[in-house]
Parts: sequence; structure tokens; C-alpha cells
Amino acid sequence: MGLKFSAQDVRGIYNIIPTPATPNAHHIDADDTVNYEATYKLVNMLIDEGVDAILTNGTFGEGATLTEKEHIAFVAKVIETAGGRVPVFAGATTLNTRDTIRRGKLFREMGATGLFLGRPMWCECDDNTIVGFYSDIATALPDTPLIIYDNPEAFKGKLSPRVYSRLAGIPNIIASKYIAIGPQYLDDVEACGDSIRLLPLDSDWYYARKWVGEKAPACWTGSGNCGMAVLRALKKAIESGDDAYALEITRDIRYTYKTLFPHGSFKLFSLYNIPLEKARFDAAGLVEAGPARPPYHHVPQDYLEGAREAGRRWAEINKKYSG
Amino acid sequence: MGLKFSAQDVRGIYNIIPTPATPNAHHIDADDTVNYEATYKLVNMLIDEGVDAILTNGTFGEGATLTEKEHIAFVAKVIETAGGRVPVFAGATTLNTRDTIRRGKLFREMGATGLFLGRPMWCECDDNTIVGFYSDIATALPDTPLIIYDNPEAFKGKLSPRVYSRLAGIPNIIASKYIAIGPQYLDDVEACGDSIRLLPLDSDWYYARKWVGEKAPACWTGSGNCGMAVLRALKKAIESGDDAYALEITRDIRYTYKTLFPHGSFKLFSLYNIPLEKARFDAAGLVEAGPARPPYHHVPQDYLEGAREAGRRWAEINKKYSG
Amino acid sequence: MGLKFSAQDVRGIYNIIPTPATPNAHHIDADDTVNYEATYKLVNMLIDEGVDAILTNGTFGEGATLTEKEHIAFVAKVIETAGGRVPVFAGATTLNTRDTIRRGKLFREMGATGLFLGRPMWCECDDNTIVGFYSDIATALPDTPLIIYDNPEAFKGKLSPRVYSRLAGIPNIIASKYIAIGPQYLDDVEACGDSIRLLPLDSDWYYARKWVGEKAPACWTGSGNCGMAVLRALKKAIESGDDAYALEITRDIRYTYKTLFPHGSFKLFSLYNIPLEKARFDAAGLVEAGPARPPYHHVPQDYLEGAREAGRRWAEINKKYSG
Amino acid sequence: MGLKFSAQDVRGIYNIIPTPATPNAHHIDADDTVNYEATYKLVNMLIDEGVDAILTNGTFGEGATLTEKEHIAFVAKVIETAGGRVPVFAGATTLNTRDTIRRGKLFREMGATGLFLGRPMWCECDDNTIVGFYSDIATALPDTPLIIYDNPEAFKGKLSPRVYSRLAGIPNIIASKYIAIGPQYLDDVEACGDSIRLLPLDSDWYYARKWVGEKAPACWTGSGNCGMAVLRALKKAIESGDDAYALEITRDIRYTYKTLFPHGSFKLFSLYNIPLEKARFDAAGLVEAGPARPPYHHVPQDYLEGAREAGRRWAEINKKYSG
Repeated sequence: MGLKFSAQDVRGIYNIIPTPATPNAHHIDADDTVNYEATYKLVNMLIDEGVDAILTNGTFGEGATLTEKEHIAFVAKVIETAGGRVPVFAGATTLNTRDTIRRGKLFREMGATGLFLGRPMWCECDDNTIVGFYSDIATALPDTPLIIYDNPEAFKGKLSPRVYSRLAGIPNIIASKYIAIGPQYLDDVEACGDSIRLLPLDSDWYYARKWVGEKAPACWTGSGNCGMAVLRALKKAIESGDDAYALEITRDIRYTYKTLFPHGSFKLFSLYNIPLEKARFDAAGLVEAGPARPPYHHVPQDYLEGAREAGRRWAEINKKYSG
Repeated sequence: MGLKFSAQDVRGIYNIIPTPATPNAHHIDADDTVNYEATYKLVNMLIDEGVDAILTNGTFGEGATLTEKEHIAFVAKVIETAGGRVPVFAGATTLNTRDTIRRGKLFREMGATGLFLGRPMWCECDDNTIVGFYSDIATALPDTPLIIYDNPEAFKGKLSPRVYSRLAGIPNIIASKYIAIGPQYLDDVEACGDSIRLLPLDSDWYYARKWVGEKAPACWTGSGNCGMAVLRALKKAIESGDDAYALEITRDIRYTYKTLFPHGSFKLFSLYNIPLEKARFDAAGLVEAGPARPPYHHVPQDYLEGAREAGRRWAEINKKYSG
Repeated sequence: MGLKFSAQDVRGIYNIIPTPATPNAHHIDADDTVNYEATYKLVNMLIDEGVDAILTNGTFGEGATLTEKEHIAFVAKVIETAGGRVPVFAGATTLNTRDTIRRGKLFREMGATGLFLGRPMWCECDDNTIVGFYSDIATALPDTPLIIYDNPEAFKGKLSPRVYSRLAGIPNIIASKYIAIGPQYLDDVEACGDSIRLLPLDSDWYYARKWVGEKAPACWTGSGNCGMAVLRALKKAIESGDDAYALEITRDIRYTYKTLFPHGSFKLFSLYNIPLEKARFDAAGLVEAGPARPPYHHVPQDYLEGAREAGRRWAEINKKYSG
Repeated sequence: MGLKFSAQDVRGIYNIIPTPATPNAHHIDADDTVNYEATYKLVNMLIDEGVDAILTNGTFGEGATLTEKEHIAFVAKVIETAGGRVPVFAGATTLNTRDTIRRGKLFREMGATGLFLGRPMWCECDDNTIVGFYSDIATALPDTPLIIYDNPEAFKGKLSPRVYSRLAGIPNIIASKYIAIGPQYLDDVEACGDSIRLLPLDSDWYYARKWVGEKAPACWTGSGNCGMAVLRALKKAIESGDDAYALEITRDIRYTYKTLFPHGSFKLFSLYNIPLEKARFDAAGLVEAGPARPPYHHVPQDYLEGAREAGRRWAEINKKYSG
């Protein structure tokens, strides 16, 4: 069984990892496409460099395109490598409640701290279906901490304050990956109370802190895969209240993201999330993310180049903050 | 191995079936929730009453919420019951290419005529990804006839004429379940040429024929599960060119659908597609569709009542055309 | 006062005209930008060539960008030129009810047969507001026939069958310019009964007839401005029941439209409706439509070239049907 | 001619006023529906209570539904009453460039400080059309300060950072009414530099300050019409850096808004913006806003009650901050 973990323990840098792939992973007849050595190196790098938690198998972590066997083997490798040094939240999003329960139960038995969970997306879920889904998971896996994965493009809609206030009554749920702090963020934070921590993106974290202070004790990121020094510096600046420095780092981070989103569009990015993020990580040089698995290996070349530039930029600022 | 089947063989009533469920199927700890006896009776009823093809595991066929084991056992039961009397196209939509290939291969080995295939929907697919996906399936399963399942709400977008003209170059693809004949239908038919048959809904079939004649040799329906007499009459009227009768039947069919779509909205219907259709089938009295599997068992009561009324109306007109 | 006119009189080719502009009309300091001579020639050409009704000041007729003085002078010129030979429905869409009443009253006193009326579009109108608006106009202008202008992009939504069934109770309303015959068209026709005639686009007219027969006695078009011979032939083929010829003409018409809609998108077309349509008319060679008035004179050059090609194509097929 | 005014002069509370209406103003045969006495009282109340600028004829100020004569008479009354004590930005949004120029020129000659300008909305404007429109206005009215009115629902889209960076090159433009500070706000502020001040809503002002400090020197509001004491207190707290008090006031303001937006939806609110805001102002008790002018006088009763409650709540907190 994994570690105990509550909303009050959520703090720092929550980094989502890709599922490193063997060079042939974009072929339909490839089998066992997990690059275990790259996984081992990635997890160790993150922990050595100060990550606070590791999350697996979101969108770019290819929750959709791994076979069940690969998925389980990958999570096993991550948990084994982490060895309890940091909490591991294993992605277990599937097309339905029962598959998620079965897979989540297995991950917990394998030692996962908790689960990182999007909702079924074949049909869009209404409020009752969303709350029912997470509630059913919590009932079936009573001691399992859950981090919600709320991606409006993937799961066909954004959680509302009304839903958050109902989810706040489910003790297992400790946090939610938050997409963009905007008009609704304040209402969502209020709806969550102290039961659920909303995790802004790294580049939004400083701004979230200015609005809600201690209610934003952690951020999510995928950029740890490009280098942790920037994020370590950001965390220190934010926690020590060094606003000027936190803002400088934030601006540097935003500079790296400018080329990641095709035409500045999150919707467009969402079509190519997987190959773009993997190309970005590869370009930064610290991880061998490898090719995207089918069918999501098609991507316009100029978008890909933008992603690579984003990776190179991160590597550049990571050097600046490594000193 | 299944039967040979080409676009030129597509004709008549293509009925999609639900996956009949045991009474406890909405519980998360339910296992092996397929009601085999109801499946057996349903398949026999359809064939005895003149169905031209059976399709399984679309949206209301719970492609999303069956476990893999249930899915395989159910398809086996359908194929075994059909016993080669009518072609069976087994739904094998999953979250990715490799899982669909594996499952599709198994279904073919089990005797399925072909596959009924939506595309992965975690990330929205661009044109290249859609064509790449179906092309990969065709490469991996070279002799397998494919019927495309194009549902704009489920799969985040509608196929365009540009995509259809590319798909028409893949020999395996013989038909596509078409959502609503509107402004784009004529362009889509033109793009498909004689390689792919677009299947309109039963209530649109007469209208499609008036536009494109022989290019609309078949319709899809789920209403065969409520009674085949109406559809048999429609097919006969259409094929014999009895326009007045075909229109009368069409109007009767449209009358039954009026209460099925909440507030007349397909988008809203799509959230509750599964429980609404299963309730409709149950209310018509010929099949025990049983409860919807989690997480899609939540549905507003007044929508449910509309669905039941639609089922009762079908039973009523089915009697009229049974004589 | 204008002519009497009811839904039962609606038949044939209803052509919407542009407001021909002086060469400087895209300048902000231009005054009295109506090209009266071109207007005179256009109206005479249409009547000589067999148009059934003339409609003015829709979107490409620049209902939005004429000054009130220009608008009135233009409508006066159209009515005077028509001289009672064909009905004239003058566009009087404004930002509110009272302005439309005042302008509409004036147009009727000037001799307009009726009005061609979109709804106010600053705020989107809900059902009650739409019905209230047309009802108020009818109350204020009791003997004035009204043709509804329903453009989903311009007026932020499409009329629903529910709204049509309420509008059918307002005796003044005799017809509605219909955007695209699709899934909803049959319901709308049913809702309108014999009180309102829905006018499909010329290229949809044949298809509408195949569905609803006599309920589609007329089409709307802007292509009369490019040459009436095609439309005359279409009308004759449709009214005489010569399906094969009607279909051939329809296909020719559709061929000309293929380059008009940028990337095949009606939404994108709607941003540049005015300059694109004026360029198309100019390229066909029969009317001097002149430049678009500000602010709608900006348009990507490649879209413009597509519109000109559409005009040249119409001129080409018009020659074919002139013999 | 009006006062000189630049982006550097923008500071404090920018309140948009309704156009007070006579009791019969919702009738289509009503003429001269401006309630001049209520206008006089409202303008004086706002100035006496410390408003920093008055804006007229946005959406709820009925820029769409006043006749031209009423519009001019109303603006004259506002300018005359203000008497140069505070700047007045007169709304002059129309359906096209030339009408806006003519009306804007007149308002300036009447003594307006500047104009408050949305863009034509019959067709959606692309980037070039938006920039061309404001550029044309600036060319025609060279010394006239302009405040942009950017309402995504009314004008079919939100200004992008790319557009703002181009608008920043037009010297007349000094500010822009901003709809909701979200993910794009930081990019927009950066694009505007020191040339254009983005005005957040009163309830967002504190949060905007936390992000961009002096770049948010003013807010827009319509709630000054319900009582200025709250806003005066907010301004003082913000300008003196009293964060705790600013936050308390902000929370009180947000409490009053909770019942204003039907189902929490801005889109839904936008359909009924005018009658809802007028009902809110009336319920607060300080202004006689009167009925909404046609066609926008239809509104569901429960939405109306929510708006009234919002007005009563403002009156309640206004008392708290009046002491």
C-alpha cells in the first residue's frame, strides 16, 4: 500500500512525466514500447533535482495509447525507481468506472501513493455523472488519495464551482490539475475550501499566489522533464515571498512557452499535445521521450518546430537558474 | 474468418444493438454483466424479423463501459447466435490504434463479418490522424470490411468531404454511419463515390433517397430493437419506389422520435445517449436492455420519460405495420 | 402604398441585390455613395430577364453600412425603376424596433411591396424577443408583407421550429430566407404550414422540392446579379417537373459556388460576405457593384480571388443556359 | 471641443450610465423616451459622490435602441449636467464607420471629452477590420480620446494581444473596457504597453492590481449607478495599498453580483443585459432607469428577480461603506 497523503500535504512542484518510448513505438506492430532505462533515468533525475511529486499517464503521458500491459509495467518501473522518496500519483483514466477501479487498485497494491484521474470521455459527463464517477472510485478505493485531472478539451468541459463544492465532500480527493487561472478560479478555490488544492500551471503559480496565497501551495508542470532548476528557483522565490524574483522567473518560463502553442491556441495544441510535448522534452536534452504512439503521431512540422524551440528555451533558462 | 463483404453488398436495414445487461449492471462491483439470454433472444428476433446486418458496441452498445472480458464474451454470443445468417459488424472502438487492432483481429477470428469503428477520442483527431488511423487498421487487418462510426459528439468532430475522399481510397472501408443529412451530405456522397456507402438514419432514409437514389441503399437504426415491422415496411416501400407509403412510414417514425431528444437537442441527447436508448428499447417491450453501466447511469428523470414514450410510440406504430 | 402580397403569391426567383457603389465608396469621407445609374441598369436587367421579386439591403446589400440618407435614396431608385413590374421587398433591418418601423413605414409609403427584415443583433434575441420584434413590426405596419431574413451568423442564431410556429400566427409574415436545408428544414416547413414560405438558396431549391414539393415554390439567390438565364432555366425545369435537367442545372450552380466559400466555411464567408459578393458580381460582368463600404472593405486577397472565380464561372454557365 | 485626455490621465472609477427612460419607453410608439430629470439627478449624484469619469451608451446604456434624436438629446443632457466637472466619454457605436464618425464628431462639438466605442457587429470583424475601423475613426476625429468597448458577446469576439499591439499604435486610443481578467489579460497588458489602459470590472480590479500594479490604474463599473460609496472605498483601499480592506470590499462586491448572472452564465446574461441591469439599478433605489426599450424588454421573471436582488445587495453594502 502507498503512503498516506492529504490535501494538507500538497506542496511544491508536481511534475507529470511522459512515458518514454522505444524508437519503434509509433509503429502499430510494436509491442512493449516502454523505454525502461529512460524511465529510470527520468525519475531519478527529477527526484535528485528536487521534485515534490510525480504524476503519470495524463495526456502526454499517453494514458490513451499504452496497452494495459505497458501501462502497468511502466507504472511499476516508476514506483520502483521512486522507491518512496517522493509520492507517485499513477494515471488510471480509462473509458469507464470499473476499468479505472481495477487498474487503480492494482497501482495502489504496487505502491502508488495515489491516483491521477481524468473522467471517461466517450460521452460528455454532466455534473451528476462527474460527481458519481469520482464518488464511486472513492468508495471502491477508500484509502486512495486522488488528484483530479481536469482538461476541458480531453474531457469535454471544465469543472464548475458547483461541481467542485460537491467533490470537496469526497475525502479522497486532495487536489486538481487546473488548466488556466481565469475568471472562474476564485470561485473554484472558494468552492474547494481546504479539502481540494487547485494546482495551477507553473507559469500561473506566481499569479495564483498573488490572488489566493496559501490556497495555492503547489503547481503542476511538465517542464520538470526539461530541467528542474527553474522550478526549484520558482518554488523558493514563491515560498520565501521574494515577489520580484518569482516574477522574473515566471516571465522566463512564459518566454519558453510562447512557441509551444500553435497560433497561441490551447484548442489547437490539444490535438497534438502528445507529439508536441514529447518533442519539447527531447529537445531540452534531459529525457528520451521518444516517438508518440499511434494514432497520435501525426503533427504538422511547423508546430513540431515550435515545440522543439520551447524545449531549447527551457534548457537555456534552466542553465541560468542552475548556478 | 468472417464473410466477404463489399460496399456493393450494403443494402437494407443495418441495426445497432445494445449490450443487454444484468439487473445489477449499474453497480461498480458487478462482474460479467452481460445478459446472454436477452442477447440471444434479441439477435434471433432481429434476424427472424428481417434485419440485414447487425452492428455492435457503438455508443449505446456500451463500447466504452464494458470490460474487455465482457466485450469479447458478448460479441462471441452475438456471432454464435447469428450463425452466419446475417453479417455481424463488431464494434471495436478503443482509445488507440493497437488496442483496436488486437480486439478487431480477435473478433474476426471469432467469425465477425467486419468491424464497426469509431476513432480514438481522448485527443481530437485532425484529418491526417483520422486517415492514418483507419489506414493503419486496414493494413493490420487486410481482409476485414470496416464500417466507420462517425459521431461528432463522441469523436469531437464530423468527417469532412476531404477526409471521405481520402478514406475512399482504403478498400476495407465499405460504409459509414451518417449522423444527419444536411448541407454537407451531397458533398460527402460525391467524395465517397462507389467506395463507401453513407448510411442515413432510418427517419432520414427516404429523404436521402430523394436526393441521391441508389447511393443510399441502406440505413442505420437502433429502432430495430423496438420492432422490425416498421423498418421492413420502409425498406419495401423505398425499394419498390412507393414514395407515398415511404413518406407515411417516415412520418410515423419521426413522430416516435419527437420525445427522444431532450429539448430537441442532439448535443444534450449525447450526454445521456446510453441510458435513454436503453430505456427506449425496454419500453418498447421486445428486448431486456437493462441498466446502463457506470459512469453513464445518471440521467434526469424527465429525459428518461421522454425516451420511454419514444419506445412506446414505436411499439404502437410497429403494430400498425405488422399486419 | 405597395402591392398586396401573400404567402400564396410567393413563387419563383427572389433575387437580393447589392447596393451599387461609387468608386470612392470605401473612403470614410465619401458621401452619397450610391451608384444610381448602375442601380437602374441592374433592376432593369433583372426584370427584363425574368426575376420574380427583388429584395434589397440584406448583408451584401449593405444594410449595415449605408447612411440613412443613402439607404432611402437607394430604395427610392429601386422602387421607381421597378415601377410595379415586380414586387420589391426593401431591407429595413436596424439596431432596434422603432428605427425599423420608421424606416419601413417610409419605404411602404414610397411604394415598396413589403419589407425584408433581419432582427436587431447587438444583443442576441431569445425566442420571445424574436417573436415580439416581428409582432411589433406587424402591429405598427398592419398591411405590410414581411419576408424574414434569418442569417445565423449575422443575427446570432437560427430560428427554431418553435419560433416558426409562433411566427406563423403573424399574418404579415409571408416568407423567410432560409440558410441551408438540413436536418431541421422539415420541422421548420411543418411549423410554417401554409402561412410562411421558406426560401432555400438556388442551389438547394431542387433538393428542397424533392423533400417538400409545393411547399418550396420559390428560392432566394444573389446570383441573379450575375445572370438570370441559369435561374430561369432552373425555375422552368423545377416547375415542369423535369428532374434530370433541374439536377444538371443545380450541379452547374454548385460548381460555381465551390470557390466562393473560403475553405468551404460559411462562418468564414460571413466575415467577408460583403466584399466577396460584390467582387463576385463585378467579375460576372453584368453589374457594377463597386467597392464595399467601411468598415467591411478589408478582405484577404486569396478569398477575393475565389469570389471572382465564382463570378466568372456563373457567367460561363449563364452563357450555356442563355441559348 | 472637449477636454484633453491621455492614457496617463486614466485613473479611478469609470462608471457607465444607463439612459433613464420614461415609463412608456417599452412601447413601440413612444417618442422622446429619455427621462431628462432622472438623467440630471443621476449625473449629479455620481459626480457628487466622487466618480472619476462617466461613460454613456454601451449595451445597457441602450446604444442600440435609442433613436438618433434621443441619443443626441441624452448625450447633450449628460454633458451639460456634468459641466466639465468630470470627463464624459459618449457612446457612439453604430452599424458602420461613417455613422460613428458623424455622431462622434457631433458629440465632440457638444463638449464630450471623448468617445466610448464598440465596433460594428452585423458581420464579425477580423483583425484588419477592427484595426481599420478604429484607425479610420482616429483619422477622422484626430484629437478625440477613444475608450474601446470590447464585449465578446455583442461584437462577436474578444480582442487578441495581436490586435491590442496594433491598436496601441493609434494615439487616440487611451483605454479599453475589459471583460474578465483571465489567462489572456497578462498578454493583453503587455501588448498595450503604456498606450492603452485596460479597465477591469470593479470586482476584478483588486486582482488585476495584484498582477500588474500601476498598469491597472482604473476600473469600469455600472454599479456606481447603485451607489458610489463602495467604489470610493475600493479606490482608496487600492490606491493606499490597503490589501486587506480592498479584498474585503471586493468580496462584498462579488457577493452582490452572485444573483445577477442567470445560472452564472455571462452568455445568458448577455441576452438580457439591458433589462437586467436597468432592474438592478432601479432596485438599488438611487436612479430611475425605467423600462428597457424595444425589442430588448422581454426577460424571464426569475432572471429579473436575481437582478433586483443584486441591486438590493449593493444598496446594503453601500450603506456599510458610507459611514
